[in-house]
Amino acid sequence: MDSITIIGLCAASFTTFAFLPQLIKTIKLKQTKDLSLMMYLVFVIGIVLWLIYGINKNDLPIILANIVSLLLSGTVLVLKIIYK
Amino acid sequence: MDSITIIGLCAASFTTFAFLPQLIKTIKLKQTKDLSLMMYLVFVIGIVLWLIYGINKNDLPIILANIVSLLLSGTVLVLKIIYK
Repeated sequence: MDSITIIGLCAASFTTFAFLPQLIKTIKLKQTKDLSLMMYLVFVIGIVLWLIYGINKNDLPIILANIVSLLLSGTVLVLKIIYK
Repeated sequence: MDSITIIGLCAASFTTFAFLPQLIKTIKLKQTKDLSLMMYLVFVIGIVLWLIYGINKNDLPIILANIVSLLLSGTVLVLKIIYK
């Protein structure tokens, strides 16, 4: 695997798993006042579109990365609605 | 342009501009207690890696989307550090 592919995989991992510390913080704090509902709504819609794109292109990395993103950011969105 | 390309461009626009309402909210509230510092640190590092990837691949959509993402999420990160 060339170094540019490795940089791309790292980039995808970082932007995907970045939402994990936010999810953990939100579960612990049970507070979401400073989080933007609109951000998480728009982001989750975008991730669903990425999933549709990946499935149509038969692109496994896009599909896998966006399933993880959907689980993480989707759960933050649900918590934002519950703890508003 | 085929419909899958349009879905991909919409996906990229949604996940990029999702951070704009968060940035506006943070500027208005001047409060970032519920935001995860680790999320924005990891996310911004990921975006910088995407930029390096896009520049090396000479991929203009990746470069442009990640310049916008870097401006938006990078500013939220700076505000998180200022208003902690």
